[in-house]
Amino acid sequence: MPDEFELIRRLAATQRGARDDVVLGIGDDGAVLAPARGAQLVAACDTLVAGRHFPEDTDAFAIGWKALAVNLSDLAAMGAVPQWALLALTLPERDATWIERFGAGFAALAKMSEVALVGGDTTRGPLTITVTALGAVAPDAALRREGAQVGDRVCVAGVLGEAALGLAAVHARRRDDPVFAHCIARLDRPEPQLALGQALVGVATACIDVSDGLVADLGHVATASGVGVRLDLDAIPHPPFELGARLGLNPRAAVDLALGGGDDYLLAFTVDAARMSGLRERIAELGLDLHEIGVVVPGNGVAVITREGGDYAPARAGFNHFGSDDGE
Amino acid sequence: MPDEFELIRRLAATQRGARDDVVLGIGDDGAVLAPARGAQLVAACDTLVAGRHFPEDTDAFAIGWKALAVNLSDLAAMGAVPQWALLALTLPERDATWIERFGAGFAALAKMSEVALVGGDTTRGPLTITVTALGAVAPDAALRREGAQVGDRVCVAGVLGEAALGLAAVHARRRDDPVFAHCIARLDRPEPQLALGQALVGVATACIDVSDGLVADLGHVATASGVGVRLDLDAIPHPPFELGARLGLNPRAAVDLALGGGDDYLLAFTVDAARMSGLRERIAELGLDLHEIGVVVPGNGVAVITREGGDYAPARAGFNHFGSDDGE
Repeated sequence: MPDEFELIRRLAATQRGARDDVVLGIGDDGAVLAPARGAQLVAACDTLVAGRHFPEDTDAFAIGWKALAVNLSDLAAMGAVPQWALLALTLPERDATWIERFGAGFAALAKMSEVALVGGDTTRGPLTITVTALGAVAPDAALRREGAQVGDRVCVAGVLGEAALGLAAVHARRRDDPVFAHCIARLDRPEPQLALGQALVGVATACIDVSDGLVADLGHVATASGVGVRLDLDAIPHPPFELGARLGLNPRAAVDLALGGGDDYLLAFTVDAARMSGLRERIAELGLDLHEIGVVVPGNGVAVITREGGDYAPARAGFNHFGSDDGE
Repeated sequence: MPDEFELIRRLAATQRGARDDVVLGIGDDGAVLAPARGAQLVAACDTLVAGRHFPEDTDAFAIGWKALAVNLSDLAAMGAVPQWALLALTLPERDATWIERFGAGFAALAKMSEVALVGGDTTRGPLTITVTALGAVAPDAALRREGAQVGDRVCVAGVLGEAALGLAAVHARRRDDPVFAHCIARLDRPEPQLALGQALVGVATACIDVSDGLVADLGHVATASGVGVRLDLDAIPHPPFELGARLGLNPRAAVDLALGGGDDYLLAFTVDAARMSGLRERIAELGLDLHEIGVVVPGNGVAVITREGGDYAPARAGFNHFGSDDGE
């Protein structure tokens, strides 16, 4: 049996005892877990395919990190506290360094997020990684896409479009240019907004994680909630125009990437206007900046409004080859 | 968005309301589930890769069925009652018929097993299917690989080697020969022994599902339990010699496939000798035949003993291209 078939076992061994709600970890037919008393369970499952969800030349550390991150971001969007993960890894022949770096990336985020790897499978084939993440939420408290009410404020707590600009830099073979280091880090090692999601429980009326792009994902919220969303173009936090220009992009590219670039893994959420000031304080305590980017309106769909009051049509970002396929 | 990206959603819709412990099913960032009060959670995750875990020409219905079956078999081996599944499907361009048949196969077993599909992901790429299955077991009651005691009887409740013989028939292009229909059905649509696993809770001292082959899998039990296993060659339930002969196989092939062919998805378990008669009755009630195939002995490893008392060395089965890679 090749080395990599030991990967999951070794990864799991590094975390033994990490959580005392793991009754039986890896090494049997299944894991045995002790759900938090009275809590509901949140489960999310996402696949990354090489060349589709990340560039083929991505560092293995980043692949391991990101495979867990995109799933923890789903838990964050539900307001859940992550507990456990299962890792299904299909991979071609890889050298020991690749395996180790992949494992190190996965383990680094698992440790940071207090997640125990409790199961998985390793098979030979084209590089494909599926993670199932499990977490806890108080009964009937999970944040959902439905629930946004007319008049609610639409918010994010971070800068959108950085990962997409990072991908544009990678495509332009500027991976080693320090000017793009921050954006490429956002692409490679997104940090799921877990603390934010948990802080939004009981406060946000709807929540989603931005994986396909802000407009597309808020479209899911609008549909699920039976409302429309009106975004204020000037309020959208985006990377500096200057960075896009360095790649020869249109000056508006930074904004268009913020609206449609995808791969952000920030939470977008709606909040009753009366609760905004309290929330602003709470979010500052988390070290985040709250951006109020729009309002929930009657109707449907998502409109982006310019300072002059016109509809802004973002250019099709064109860098989203690696977004998710189905909007989940 | 191509049709197949709706597959999981449509599949889930067919089962809406199937279980009232699904608080929120597919369509949000994660599913919200209500664990059974006081129960522990069992989680298993297995991947099937086309051409590796099933022949490329396998009917899509069988692929959908089997992807769930191998995971439910893991839950069965833990004695768990299955509740929920998540399906991560990576697939190349497929026609609508393929998609429908895949979904029908998955749904048929889900319905039969009272499992609700609650989440998943669909991505474009080489055909790879990962299922995560979740179920419930009473606190600290899960069956494990460890726990076999010297003197315990080693048992199965079904015929071993049929799936491997079915695969040999497929390789010999005899898929349509009715003589092999039963074995090919065992290959394509294994039926996880869920009721058996649940009946073994509190009775079996150790349990595993036979996916890699009887000897290999009992080897895991022996290692985990710190014991040896002595199998009685004449007691191993195997397909008729005649069937192997029809494929031009050595007369002993039927036995060798039973010992090492893999893909059986039957449970192998150990039981205190004093509890055998009670168990035999209980298993008969389930419509199964209990086969006592060996005994737990001091030492380590698995030996197969002939009527004359010699060690039997099964031929390397040679049909196990499609077994699991890592023995889980």
